[in-house]
Amino acid sequence: MKIRVAIAGYGNLGRGVEHAVSASPDMELCALFTRRNPDSIKTFSAVPVYSIEKAAEMRDKIDVLILCGGSANDLPEQTPELAKYFNVIDSFDTHAKIPEHFENVNKASLSSGKVSIISVGWDPGMFSLNRLYGQAILPDGNDYTFWGKGVSQGHSDAIRRIEGVLDARQYTIPVESALESVRNGENPTLTTREKHTRECFVVAEDGADLARIEREIVTMPNYFADYDTTVHFISQEELEQEHAGIPHGGRVFRTGTTANGANSHVIEYSLKLDSNPEFTASVLTAYARAAYRLNSEGVSGAKTVFDIAPAYLHPESGEELRRKLL
Amino acid sequence: MKIRVAIAGYGNLGRGVEHAVSASPDMELCALFTRRNPDSIKTFSAVPVYSIEKAAEMRDKIDVLILCGGSANDLPEQTPELAKYFNVIDSFDTHAKIPEHFENVNKASLSSGKVSIISVGWDPGMFSLNRLYGQAILPDGNDYTFWGKGVSQGHSDAIRRIEGVLDARQYTIPVESALESVRNGENPTLTTREKHTRECFVVAEDGADLARIEREIVTMPNYFADYDTTVHFISQEELEQEHAGIPHGGRVFRTGTTANGANSHVIEYSLKLDSNPEFTASVLTAYARAAYRLNSEGVSGAKTVFDIAPAYLHPESGEELRRKLL
Repeated sequence: MKIRVAIAGYGNLGRGVEHAVSASPDMELCALFTRRNPDSIKTFSAVPVYSIEKAAEMRDKIDVLILCGGSANDLPEQTPELAKYFNVIDSFDTHAKIPEHFENVNKASLSSGKVSIISVGWDPGMFSLNRLYGQAILPDGNDYTFWGKGVSQGHSDAIRRIEGVLDARQYTIPVESALESVRNGENPTLTTREKHTRECFVVAEDGADLARIEREIVTMPNYFADYDTTVHFISQEELEQEHAGIPHGGRVFRTGTTANGANSHVIEYSLKLDSNPEFTASVLTAYARAAYRLNSEGVSGAKTVFDIAPAYLHPESGEELRRKLL
Repeated sequence: MKIRVAIAGYGNLGRGVEHAVSASPDMELCALFTRRNPDSIKTFSAVPVYSIEKAAEMRDKIDVLILCGGSANDLPEQTPELAKYFNVIDSFDTHAKIPEHFENVNKASLSSGKVSIISVGWDPGMFSLNRLYGQAILPDGNDYTFWGKGVSQGHSDAIRRIEGVLDARQYTIPVESALESVRNGENPTLTTREKHTRECFVVAEDGADLARIEREIVTMPNYFADYDTTVHFISQEELEQEHAGIPHGGRVFRTGTTANGANSHVIEYSLKLDSNPEFTASVLTAYARAAYRLNSEGVSGAKTVFDIAPAYLHPESGEELRRKLL
């Protein structure tokens, strides 16, 4: 019997999950929930679409619900609410608020006897896992996380809010010399500016003051002021042709020594992703398998990627995994 | 209270564990067991040394025993035997015999109510984990494992058995163009020869037939015949000065697509290790923490890295990990 999966929210991430579930032979997508008018949603698979209000009454028909809303406004309320009825997975990524979110979701999941896995994706998610494995193996060492090259939606949005800007796309780019220094085990101390640069492609209104827009971007506190930032003004056509994708990625390093500093080691985990939301969706879907299996064994409560034994993510049995992958 | 760790076997790996336990503030090394005369063992820490025959009677004084013997002759008997008394960790790496070894160790651990974690290290071990995570996240894709640049002990030993050879050191080296092709998502089909080359540094007896030795190396079935192999004859002094270390490493890739092939993704996990045995020992020590904790929760039986939730490896609490690393 296949694992019955449902999706809540149908943006880029929800569409990614729709694809990822289709690619998983042990799963079937049985419902899509939306806050919009269900009739307005065009899915590419034959999944039935329902109002999110209907979710609770379908609790017996769904093994695990993957939440695809945003961390700022949707998940802080949606995850604890839906954890009252379902095994749930979310990609909550507001790092500072994870402990509070975990507590809220944990209470709901314990009361329902279900499993929730929060903050799933690649950062938080696979990058977090690699920070943990790296620290556990090499206690005498340093962590480094680099992001990119990739599109930052938050920074792109910040540029769009500047007067005279019609559209924008911002890329975060790791500094190659910093990567090399870390990779060579030099354990550099790196400032924000030394780790990443920012490159902006901006579509301005006709007749806008380009010098002012550029100045407002590169001096914007928190977003750009601490980085070396490059601004390119381009046409809407060029933006759509050359910058339509949502690539991202990055690297987590653990560099450390053994035998009181006698020998050095470098662990590097790298992601190069053509589609940030589709990859995140693929991670969510693998953890949906784990949530269902854990709950089938009687486990309940909130979990993170740190709490999930890797074998739960893979469709094959422990015996097959030991034979083929170990 | 610290976790009381003991070591069985005092070669390169055992010495690495001695260092790794010293670097772990939550552990103390309380015994070293050997098959040699205990008086002949010189440790660098103050750990007491006992005959392996004494191990069973010390079972109440040791929380977890890390086995540092070899896979060919030691572990197939030692691990099931010592699992009758202890939580144990081993680095059993004969891939084809892992299922049989797992069954033997599992029986012993279930009967003693202890936890054993077998085949821990980096391959099998961290590389296996990355193959599993990669397949679970990107079901439509390919795996690639490359080893090196690093010293292969088995291949070095094979050269030493040739007549006229006094000493030898063999390096396994990944082919850079193959790495690049995989990294670019080209999904190449690679022969053995296209993935790795082998470089040999050989000390020959005075007056030995160097051409014959070189021919015997490069045509040796299983070890060298399927590879492009380079042979350098050097002096014993040069071997000791330039090739004394035991570096190793490698890379595991998962390349795959999402949305029916619309987007490509590359996951790369890379290790660059100055000391193969010290890094392996560091992984064993982290999993020793997990074995002890799992057993404290009432778990018993044989496990592999696939079965261990990552949080068990790290000394900090779940709450701290969520706050600092997620």
